[in-house]
Amino acid sequence: MREIEFWFEFASNYSYLSVMRIEAAAAERGVTVRWKPLLLGPIFRSLGWNTSPFVLQKAKGEYVWTDMVRQCRKHGLPWQRPAEFPRASLLPARVALVGADQPWIGAYCRRIMLLNFAEDRAIDDLHTVAEVLTQLQLPAQQILDAAQSDASKLKLRQQTEAAQAKGIFGAPTFFVGDEMFWGDDRLDDALLSASA
Amino acid sequence: MREIEFWFEFASNYSYLSVMRIEAAAAERGVTVRWKPLLLGPIFRSLGWNTSPFVLQKAKGEYVWTDMVRQCRKHGLPWQRPAEFPRASLLPARVALVGADQPWIGAYCRRIMLLNFAEDRAIDDLHTVAEVLTQLQLPAQQILDAAQSDASKLKLRQQTEAAQAKGIFGAPTFFVGDEMFWGDDRLDDALLSASA
Repeated sequence: MREIEFWFEFASNYSYLSVMRIEAAAAERGVTVRWKPLLLGPIFRSLGWNTSPFVLQKAKGEYVWTDMVRQCRKHGLPWQRPAEFPRASLLPARVALVGADQPWIGAYCRRIMLLNFAEDRAIDDLHTVAEVLTQLQLPAQQILDAAQSDASKLKLRQQTEAAQAKGIFGAPTFFVGDEMFWGDDRLDDALLSASA
Repeated sequence: MREIEFWFEFASNYSYLSVMRIEAAAAERGVTVRWKPLLLGPIFRSLGWNTSPFVLQKAKGEYVWTDMVRQCRKHGLPWQRPAEFPRASLLPARVALVGADQPWIGAYCRRIMLLNFAEDRAIDDLHTVAEVLTQLQLPAQQILDAAQSDASKLKLRQQTEAAQAKGIFGAPTFFVGDEMFWGDDRLDDALLSASA
């Protein structure tokens, strides 16, 4: 089975690029995407950082917003620099974990990412996430109940711990078998490896 | 005039990739390369780091060596992980600054990089640098005297300060006019921009 594990975080701007591109790019190569939402907060804290390195390192942070404008132009994606960065992303991540194996996962993730990075809207918001699910013709309340259950909360913590155990230190990160690829810049290499 | 500023550090593994590729890739696009050797040490110290982030961040550091194997394979470059990283690079950088506008700069930089990243040899060594210059049919002693003059030492310090003032936080970094591109992964985008 040709597949790629896709570890991403809704607050991460480079994850935005990959979330928007991966489903079509993988389909072109006959590769199945395994969606693996995670939280970068605990990973950054384990490195001694209380927020994104793009906030902590001022020069790199300023560069990143220039780079995003160019990358979005290159890939034909809309872009608006979020007024708040990194945005809280707990609820949308829990919902993504509930839907990870469902046919709506790609469309859901793209919609959440567009809210954050193209419409500059908060995403860790019950009403907003419910609206997105409803637009996708899904039973919003049922999915939100599942996402907010203790079992689901535990599962997201475990997923983030599993990411760290695999050596993940940022997002997006791709795995093809045991081989790790870090960053949207390696998406094409990872897909090439998965389809080889 | 179509040109690209190329800021690099001989101790930096991603600078290795760009040093090996840039002259041919720029020539293909009719772009002139302005070679800008710098030292990352003072830049990292200003961020509170006493060495490379690839050493300080263990998970990222381990990943980087896997990534280098793949990137070198992709570009057809030899690769041997240096036993010492990051290597001292002061003398070769001073020599590169002396030769920055000379026709031998590309060949010299590639030879120093190959010593570090393909032959696992120390590069901050008078005998080694003299040997490289001699192999290039250059007046080694005269160039080394110039490189070790007070004026040359001051010039490298000023060049590294100029890099920081431009917002450079890592290497390789490219400038096309005022536009900054960071990382070997952006070399092609930078050249495309320079030739547009």
